[in-house]
Amino acid sequence: MDPLTLSAKLSPLLAEPAQVSVGDSERDLHAEDSSLFAPHRPDAVVFARSSSEVAAVVAFAAAEHIPVTPYGAGTSNGGKTIPVRGGISLDLSRMAEIRLLDTENRLAVVQPGVLRETLNQRAGPVGLSFPIDPGANASLGGMAATNASGTTTVRYGSMRHHVRALEVVLADGSLARTGTRAAKSSAGYDMTGLFVGSEGTLAVITELTLVLQPIPEAVIAVRVTFSSVDLAVRSAVAIIGAGTLPIRLELLDGPTIAIVSEHFGMAWPPGPTLFIELGGSVASASSDLETVVALVADAGGRHVAVERDPTARQALWRARHGVGAAMAARYPGHNVRGTDVCVPVSELPAALRRARDLAAEFRLEAAVIAHAGDGNYHLVVPVALGQPEAVARFGGLHRALVGDALARAGTSTAEHGIGLMTGFLEAEHGDLLSAQRAVKQALDPAGILNPGKIIAPS
Amino acid sequence: MDPLTLSAKLSPLLAEPAQVSVGDSERDLHAEDSSLFAPHRPDAVVFARSSSEVAAVVAFAAAEHIPVTPYGAGTSNGGKTIPVRGGISLDLSRMAEIRLLDTENRLAVVQPGVLRETLNQRAGPVGLSFPIDPGANASLGGMAATNASGTTTVRYGSMRHHVRALEVVLADGSLARTGTRAAKSSAGYDMTGLFVGSEGTLAVITELTLVLQPIPEAVIAVRVTFSSVDLAVRSAVAIIGAGTLPIRLELLDGPTIAIVSEHFGMAWPPGPTLFIELGGSVASASSDLETVVALVADAGGRHVAVERDPTARQALWRARHGVGAAMAARYPGHNVRGTDVCVPVSELPAALRRARDLAAEFRLEAAVIAHAGDGNYHLVVPVALGQPEAVARFGGLHRALVGDALARAGTSTAEHGIGLMTGFLEAEHGDLLSAQRAVKQALDPAGILNPGKIIAPS
Repeated sequence: MDPLTLSAKLSPLLAEPAQVSVGDSERDLHAEDSSLFAPHRPDAVVFARSSSEVAAVVAFAAAEHIPVTPYGAGTSNGGKTIPVRGGISLDLSRMAEIRLLDTENRLAVVQPGVLRETLNQRAGPVGLSFPIDPGANASLGGMAATNASGTTTVRYGSMRHHVRALEVVLADGSLARTGTRAAKSSAGYDMTGLFVGSEGTLAVITELTLVLQPIPEAVIAVRVTFSSVDLAVRSAVAIIGAGTLPIRLELLDGPTIAIVSEHFGMAWPPGPTLFIELGGSVASASSDLETVVALVADAGGRHVAVERDPTARQALWRARHGVGAAMAARYPGHNVRGTDVCVPVSELPAALRRARDLAAEFRLEAAVIAHAGDGNYHLVVPVALGQPEAVARFGGLHRALVGDALARAGTSTAEHGIGLMTGFLEAEHGDLLSAQRAVKQALDPAGILNPGKIIAPS
Repeated sequence: MDPLTLSAKLSPLLAEPAQVSVGDSERDLHAEDSSLFAPHRPDAVVFARSSSEVAAVVAFAAAEHIPVTPYGAGTSNGGKTIPVRGGISLDLSRMAEIRLLDTENRLAVVQPGVLRETLNQRAGPVGLSFPIDPGANASLGGMAATNASGTTTVRYGSMRHHVRALEVVLADGSLARTGTRAAKSSAGYDMTGLFVGSEGTLAVITELTLVLQPIPEAVIAVRVTFSSVDLAVRSAVAIIGAGTLPIRLELLDGPTIAIVSEHFGMAWPPGPTLFIELGGSVASASSDLETVVALVADAGGRHVAVERDPTARQALWRARHGVGAAMAARYPGHNVRGTDVCVPVSELPAALRRARDLAAEFRLEAAVIAHAGDGNYHLVVPVALGQPEAVARFGGLHRALVGDALARAGTSTAEHGIGLMTGFLEAEHGDLLSAQRAVKQALDPAGILNPGKIIAPS
């Protein structure tokens, strides 16, 4: 269907005609993400404002066999929001209402376009936070669709652990609710958990009931330098094994620390560095700090710096989250792109060594940052703009890192999702692919929901 | 297929002929559970000893359209293990090997027949535990199939949070693996989480990779009496809101405390009582204890008893877990049966008042125990043996409690599962039933895996 016909058919489904756009600029904005995949324009962009509008649009798309690709804040990668077969880019950013903040049950009910930081601004004054932190100020619907996680996963888990219930629009345009407001349930199949992480390929999320966490009374950040990545990881394992429940437990390797320290003017000592955040009551945070200081000393940790001051802690985490920015500044004329494998923590030291070797083999610069408590590490790689050969080398490095992670009983993607990298899912779960494809076929028989993502057509 | 023919066809698939039984006693043992549903015999019982035997049996059953009902330790209820359409009861209790105890990654790889307590006996000496505690010494495969949880859920979550990966036999008899050993993944649909809680209706679990937890350095149990259930629940909410991470947070109402105290000779003061278990480092447990003592005092808690001694703590929890035994002893000639709804914690006081009223309305005695931190409560009800009228009254009470929980945005079953109570799932998730049925149809097209459970045939 050509864009103008499509627009004419979509307009009556929406409160206002301006909610559908077929203009070049909007279509271009919804054509790409922060990956190296080629952009592809949608035929139309719909800015939905209500669940019933989403339902009407999906029902129409189902009847006409038009692809629908949900779009949130546009912070994801892997091609997940690229409408590779055209059709409708369903932008949910204007569904951004926080509908309920329930302090007694520690729940928030939000529309999918609410941004993570917006929810935290609302929840903070009542002593609560939504702790999942992927770095970017992503939309909560997008974070659920990706099963996002990040620096705080070591304590709080991923999105899947913090989505209590969903309202979704199924592939036939019907509205359904998963889960309840109760803290636990064994009633039937875990459809909430299935839709979380399904990247918009099984349903469109139109409302989320999210679990909030009490803000710890005391938070302490610790920075420690080690003589090797191995000793840093050994320390991380010991810290968790001691039952301290760190909020964050991050590792930057030696070359990365040097780059970040210089970019942010932090004057950090050189060498692999652990960033640890502890939190709880004043007494328990202090007790955890004692434990951590003793354990890192055992592993030869040096230059232990303890930050209790919120401003100093924020500066530290801004620098840690700013690895991408530091690399972008250092390598002008490059796109900075990332990998996202995860291995059992015992394999992390060897995997990180291998990653450095592989980056050198593929002649690519890289920063190396690890969520050390989880075994998830990212290579942050500058890829020269307009050089297909550099893109190919990055692809080769990515595939090699995934192969290495799978050989270590790990996963190809810890928190970014599969998107268009369907070959990685085949490599990781070949024996399970027919079951996954059967689920997709069962819930989206016409294949209109974000086609081409997660599972390649058979 | 008659039992003898079936036996003759199954024997060649197993290492030894004795692994298939068509004798009356084995068939009777696999015909019933601890619910009030009518027993139904399988045509044959297979005692599998390996994943490949399970695969061969399921492939055979698929070819012959014979129902397969997995069976673990036989501790479940709701009819989940009753082979209501005959066929094969697939007993996995002899697949009971602990294949790996990985202290560095805090993982255990076990066969499905391994019992919870057996794993803890192995993990304890290395400072680890598998914390999910449903009370019974259930098999870990059965606990995963039910998404079991229990007294420790308030801190550790349910089985779904502690199953890292699975090996399963799919409905066509093929073996597949879900998940990896990595701590987190966003690679494709969460098939691990889908199979967990699917009650053997989507696949047969043949191996589990489980997450273990460090055993806390210090554990403290606290018992507090309140003048009302409302104040006890308000205290529970405040304790969690303060960020103390209790391991257990249990409530017994006044009549129940009197019964249990008498049965176990505990001399507990009368009145609604909270049982709280705190754990962590010595310092953090002590700090949590201070917080708890202050909070329960604020809510009018009296007779605060603190137990640090392991033997005294065990006696306390034995009594708490012994509510069923106490009721059975008090009501000879009765079956003791339970309900399992869960409501948002803010609704728990009103739900518990309503539950007492409903029990009286249906002229049934009841003990009332609540996992107060989760909003999950059980009525433990003696039902007179051989009196269909009493069974009908229990059914009426159960339906009324489920109706009340759903009206409070809760769930019909928090940790027991749906089993044959398919009407409850319809009441709770009517708008999602077609999607759940599509998933079942996709993964078990012939409908041979535990038919009749979770979803009634359409």
